[in-house]
Amino acid sequence: MIRLIEDNDPTSFEKLKLLYPHASNAFIIGITGSPGVGKSTLIDALITQFRELDKKVAILAVDPSSPFSGGAILGDRIRMQRHATDEKVFIRSMASRGQKGGLSRATKDAVVVFSAMGYEIIIIETVGAGQAEFDIANIAHSIGIVTSPGAGDGIQAVKAGILETGDIFIVNKSDKLDADASVHQLNMMIEMRKSSKTNWKAQVLKTIAQNGTGVKEVADAFLSHFDFMKNNNLIDQKRNAMEKSYFNSLLKDLILEKLFLYMKNSEACKKIEKEIQSGSMDPLSAAEFLVNKLIVFKNNE
Amino acid sequence: MIRLIEDNDPTSFEKLKLLYPHASNAFIIGITGSPGVGKSTLIDALITQFRELDKKVAILAVDPSSPFSGGAILGDRIRMQRHATDEKVFIRSMASRGQKGGLSRATKDAVVVFSAMGYEIIIIETVGAGQAEFDIANIAHSIGIVTSPGAGDGIQAVKAGILETGDIFIVNKSDKLDADASVHQLNMMIEMRKSSKTNWKAQVLKTIAQNGTGVKEVADAFLSHFDFMKNNNLIDQKRNAMEKSYFNSLLKDLILEKLFLYMKNSEACKKIEKEIQSGSMDPLSAAEFLVNKLIVFKNNE
Repeated sequence: MIRLIEDNDPTSFEKLKLLYPHASNAFIIGITGSPGVGKSTLIDALITQFRELDKKVAILAVDPSSPFSGGAILGDRIRMQRHATDEKVFIRSMASRGQKGGLSRATKDAVVVFSAMGYEIIIIETVGAGQAEFDIANIAHSIGIVTSPGAGDGIQAVKAGILETGDIFIVNKSDKLDADASVHQLNMMIEMRKSSKTNWKAQVLKTIAQNGTGVKEVADAFLSHFDFMKNNNLIDQKRNAMEKSYFNSLLKDLILEKLFLYMKNSEACKKIEKEIQSGSMDPLSAAEFLVNKLIVFKNNE
Repeated sequence: MIRLIEDNDPTSFEKLKLLYPHASNAFIIGITGSPGVGKSTLIDALITQFRELDKKVAILAVDPSSPFSGGAILGDRIRMQRHATDEKVFIRSMASRGQKGGLSRATKDAVVVFSAMGYEIIIIETVGAGQAEFDIANIAHSIGIVTSPGAGDGIQAVKAGILETGDIFIVNKSDKLDADASVHQLNMMIEMRKSSKTNWKAQVLKTIAQNGTGVKEVADAFLSHFDFMKNNNLIDQKRNAMEKSYFNSLLKDLILEKLFLYMKNSEACKKIEKEIQSGSMDPLSAAEFLVNKLIVFKNNE
């Protein structure tokens, strides 16, 4: 099913409709951070923690920055290999393919599948860089931002606009010098950020994912955040926002699909393309004519 | 005008329609390559060459990879500063802003403006990484791919799919070790590539952009390629392809604009959004209904 989604296979749409009603109970965690901070190692250690609580866990590694980075993603999967024989753990990577913007939609599609399959915790791993095209805040309940000690990483987060969205901040490789400085810097930034929409107080935690130090605390923090959302009636609110965002992605995809089909088959469109070619119409006027005159948005059926 | 385009200002569209008929004669060169190979320094030296032929030159530095990389682009502009007082040279950078995919359209818009202003040569600088979202081949007549000596760069080009599109290959920093190996490797790759659509034999040239070595040869190669296109009736063919691609970008942008406006104002859409919220309709079925039933593509006016 994930392969069908990735390949943009037309049969996946009907299947997703059937799955959708069964896909509402998973806790979705987004893990983001610059390359090299240790996201995959941390996630590997988090899987172990969640498995100790007997939770079924699915991991989706998403790379929106490039269609050609299969290498790094393959690396991720290898890093998590020790969970490969655990049938309650599912690890999958997804790379950008085909249309742009489609990855955000494909990720949501995959979440529907995992959730319907009964995975209780779904972790989506993504690099911060793709922020512009891939808004994890509209897909996940909780967002963990991973950094490692070193100058400028906090500033990087602010620049990328991800600071505002973080619920749990993890300073990984905290055996390195400057780890406490990073924690301090992040705490200061959290203090300064505009009043959060909820009363959740973002946490900053230190880990050494490689040997598991601090990872239990991170797992607990995520689960606390989910409880917090449940106890404050934030789950429904979040679901509405997620569904709206999913609806928007779907609409965008479907309308562009319909447009491409129309352009391939419509006589009117072919006529316009000929007029552009002959120079009797410029592309701007042609596009305006087509969208204004030939495409009609009705207000009821 | 460029600022209006960048800001997606609605008045820019009408202005572009007026400019379009005057925008057909420029020679558009795309310069692409990984960060650090010396693209800006090379372009700076190319400006000098083209100015010696008294050509009016416009440079557009485009960064599709991130909306937050103003720094690098600012660096580029500083690097070309010595041409700042030459009124026949115009240097502008453009970063990703607002909608995705929009940058490709914005670049084409900018080319219309530069061409209508009488710039005879328009150089578009872009990093190879954004290939997926930014297809320079549909904007430029000639594509120059810049590399520098060092392992894997050629392979990188193949991976990024840019090898197929290159007309001139430039091995910059050719005073470094391995420059000849890079030239050899590129020549071999060019031999191996699938038969080009034209009979143009791609060239591999060595430069040391920093001191100008070999840059005249690169300028000459680009002008030869333009002559080759003219002499083989390829210019019209290229213009048709460019216009078709521009038309497609415009259509996509306009239809999504119309969709967003519709979603904001339409009662039908609000009703559907409410049904999603109440759970009586899933987002997939809702999007399908809206696109299939409420959006109509007509086949004539």
